Parts: sequence; structure tokens; C-alpha cells
Amino acid sequence: PPGKKVLIVYAHQEPKSLNGSLKRVAVEELSKQGCSVTVSDLYAMQFEPRATRNDIVGCLHNSEEFNYGVEAWEAYKRGGLSSDLIEEQKKVQEADLLIFQFPLYWFSMPAIMKGWMDRVLVQGFAHEFPNCYDSGLLKNKLALFSFTTGGSKEMYAKGGISGDIRYLLWPMQHGIMHFCGVKVLAPHICFAPEYVSEEKRKEMLIAWAQRLKTLWKEEPINCSPEWYFK
Amino acid sequence: PPGKKVLIVYAHQEPKSLNGSLKRVAVEELSKQGCSVTVSDLYAMQFEPRATRNDIVGCLHNSEEFNYGVEAWEAYKRGGLSSDLIEEQKKVQEADLLIFQFPLYWFSMPAIMKGWMDRVLVQGFAHEFPNCYDSGLLKNKLALFSFTTGGSKEMYAKGGISGDIRYLLWPMQHGIMHFCGVKVLAPHICFAPEYVSEEKRKEMLIAWAQRLKTLWKEEPINCSPEWYFK
Repeated sequence: PPGKKVLIVYAHQEPKSLNGSLKRVAVEELSKQGCSVTVSDLYAMQFEPRATRNDIVGCLHNSEEFNYGVEAWEAYKRGGLSSDLIEEQKKVQEADLLIFQFPLYWFSMPAIMKGWMDRVLVQGFAHEFPNCYDSGLLKNKLALFSFTTGGSKEMYAKGGISGDIRYLLWPMQHGIMHFCGVKVLAPHICFAPEYVSEEKRKEMLIAWAQRLKTLWKEEPINCSPEWYFK
Repeated sequence: PPGKKVLIVYAHQEPKSLNGSLKRVAVEELSKQGCSVTVSDLYAMQFEPRATRNDIVGCLHNSEEFNYGVEAWEAYKRGGLSSDLIEEQKKVQEADLLIFQFPLYWFSMPAIMKGWMDRVLVQGFAHEFPNCYDSGLLKNKLALFSFTTGGSKEMYAKGGISGDIRYLLWPMQHGIMHFCGVKVLAPHICFAPEYVSEEKRKEMLIAWAQRLKTLWKEEPINCSPEWYFK
């Protein structure tokens, strides 16, 4: 609805890919609804995935023994994170909804997107013990994982060779988003687009646009082990 | 035992960290046994985690629409992958055992190590349909995930707030290693080393060295949903 802010974190190298199209469809549909949409196009930004000393501007809290988590936390508090991280945190802070759009790489997100999680969601900003899970610092936000797979729906069925697709959503949805207090909408999964017809791929885009029309009425999933492993 | 080859893929920024010590202990103990040990120290190598066009030397198979998986596969077949990848693949090919040593970041490995998986284990080298899972191309190798956590053992218990630690091992052990045919040894987990005494941390190092003494007699886990979600 008008006024809602959406951040799409997008990780695909090729604008002409199905992931590229899914991202475009989301920008168009959500903009049409009056949402304000921001895209972090990670490959285009050449986003840095490595968590290193470069993320800390100025002196270290402990220069004898580098502890990334502690240093990022301390740097966050004094405004001393590198500018690319501050920029991403601003986008997250303003967003009501985070959409992660990517091709599944090895049962997870591509490294460039994992690096976004590792570096952007620092302690102090996204969580700060005991403010985690339901009381995480990003509560009142929503997240949605939208991705394509190489394997087929049958492979990712319960009892299939790759196991229920929900098994692999646990680290991303519960371990990251829920930990930060973010509520999780049902994932949007396009199975094996490389092995279907152009016609079927078009239907995938239409289905995504269709879902987005009523997205704001959706209830979050119950992000507990039962949802994943029942 | 003498003659066995081990590759340690190591992802920590600080040599003085517990991860750094665990890595050193493994090099020492395995070398003492007569193994030949190689370490890929990812941060020191400034290993590139991003899967991009730069990984392909020369012309693309399809320059109209970049598909990383297809391009890496084609490049592998004609010897056209970038030299850093060829180097890592050589190490993997020679190894009998792969040890992954890292701090758990967001229920998974740090992005720099995820990038190693994304970029090194390309189709044609590590798997090639239908050669996946038990018939993956890296069969007859072993893998072991050795990592430290921020959360405590209680948080990662079944029924604990972060869920059974085995839940998060599924993508790494089954989704990556088993998919490539690699047999998986039980993980080695040091829970919350930052919150225990120096004495306790020393015991963690001793326990690791101790386990390594009889590692070659261990049986792999049964890498099926039962092990993870029973």
C-alpha cells in the first residue's frame, strides 16, 4: 500500500536472467501499489562479501587480537563502520519489507548475499543480546526469500533426494531473519527454471506479480522448528 | 596415517583466535602422523567469494546471457577457469580429507568460505548429473566441519531457542559435501569459546588434538534426514 517501503536485495549477475525478471516484476508491481522500492543490486555494486578489518574506520577496539564481531559492534556504536555498510543499514532501517532475490547456490544464498548478511546485520544494529529472536532489533519488519533452484520440486520434496526444501530455509529464515526479530513471509520458489519452457517461465513471472498484489494481507509463517521439520 | 593428504580450508581473520589455534593443532597433529597437510587460508589469500565473469578466462559459451553455472562448467571442461580456482581444485583433487575450520556466521559458514564452495566445486569437477550424492565426482574423500559458535550448547539443543545444531548442518554437510559424493565425519564443534575461561579454551584444543589421533578410524555419519531431524 502507499507509503510502504521495500528493500530488494538482489544477487544475480545477469539482468536477462529469470532472477533479473523476478526483481523487475517486484519493482514494477510494488511501485504501482505506491510503495517506495529500493534495490541493492549486489553484483552491480560489486558488494564486498568478506568480513575484514577494512569494515572498521579508524582505530580498533583491540588491535592485539582482531575479533570481527566485537570490532563491528564497537564501530557501529561510534559510527565507525565503512560507508557501504552504513548505507545498507540505512536502507534496512527504513524498510518495512526486505525481499531477497537470488538463485539457490549449494542449498543457500550466493556468497555475495551471505556477505551482505555477515557484514550488514551487525550487533547493536540488528540484534543485541538479549534482544534477539522475537525481540530482535529489526522487529516490525517483514522478510521474504524469493529464489530459483537448479533441482526440481520432486528432488526437494520430503523423501526426495535433496530433502524437503524447508530444511534448507532454517538457517536463512530462522537463523538470520527471525534472530533479528524480522517476521518471515512464506518463501517464493521457482523450481528449476532452466529446465522448463519459455512459456512456463512467463507463468512464473505472472505468479510472482499475482502474489505481490495481495502480499500485504499475508500472515507471517510460524517460524519455529515445526514449520521446517514437522 | 603416512601418505594421507589433508586440505584444511580455513576462514578466520586472526591467527591468535581459537580458530587459528584449532587450525594449527590440526596441522601439527596430522603432520606428526605422517599426513601431508595443505592449508587454504582464505582471508590471508584474499580469496574472492563472488561468482562472476572474471572466473572465466577467454570467451564465454553464451555472451548474450551470462549463466554462471553453465559458463563455469564449460570453462572447466576446456581448462578455462581462473587460476585461483584451478589451484583450489588441484588441492581438493589430491586430498583424502577436507577439513573446514571456521567460526559460525549466521547459522552457516562465513561468506568467504561459502564463496570457496560456490566457485571451486563446479559442475564437471565435483558433480555432473547424474553423478551426484553417493555417486558424486569427489567420492572416496572425507570431509569434516570444525567450527566455533557464538551461542551456547543449550541454545543449540533440541528445543533450545536456536534449535538442534544439526539442523544447520544439513545445507553444508548434505547439500554440499554429500552432493559431491564426499563422506562426512561427525562435526567438531566448540561452543561459545568467547564466554569460557582460558583454561576451558585450552581443553578445547586438547580435545581436538585427541580426536585427530584416531580420526582415520572413524566411520562417516549416515548423511540422511534421520541424522539431522530425527
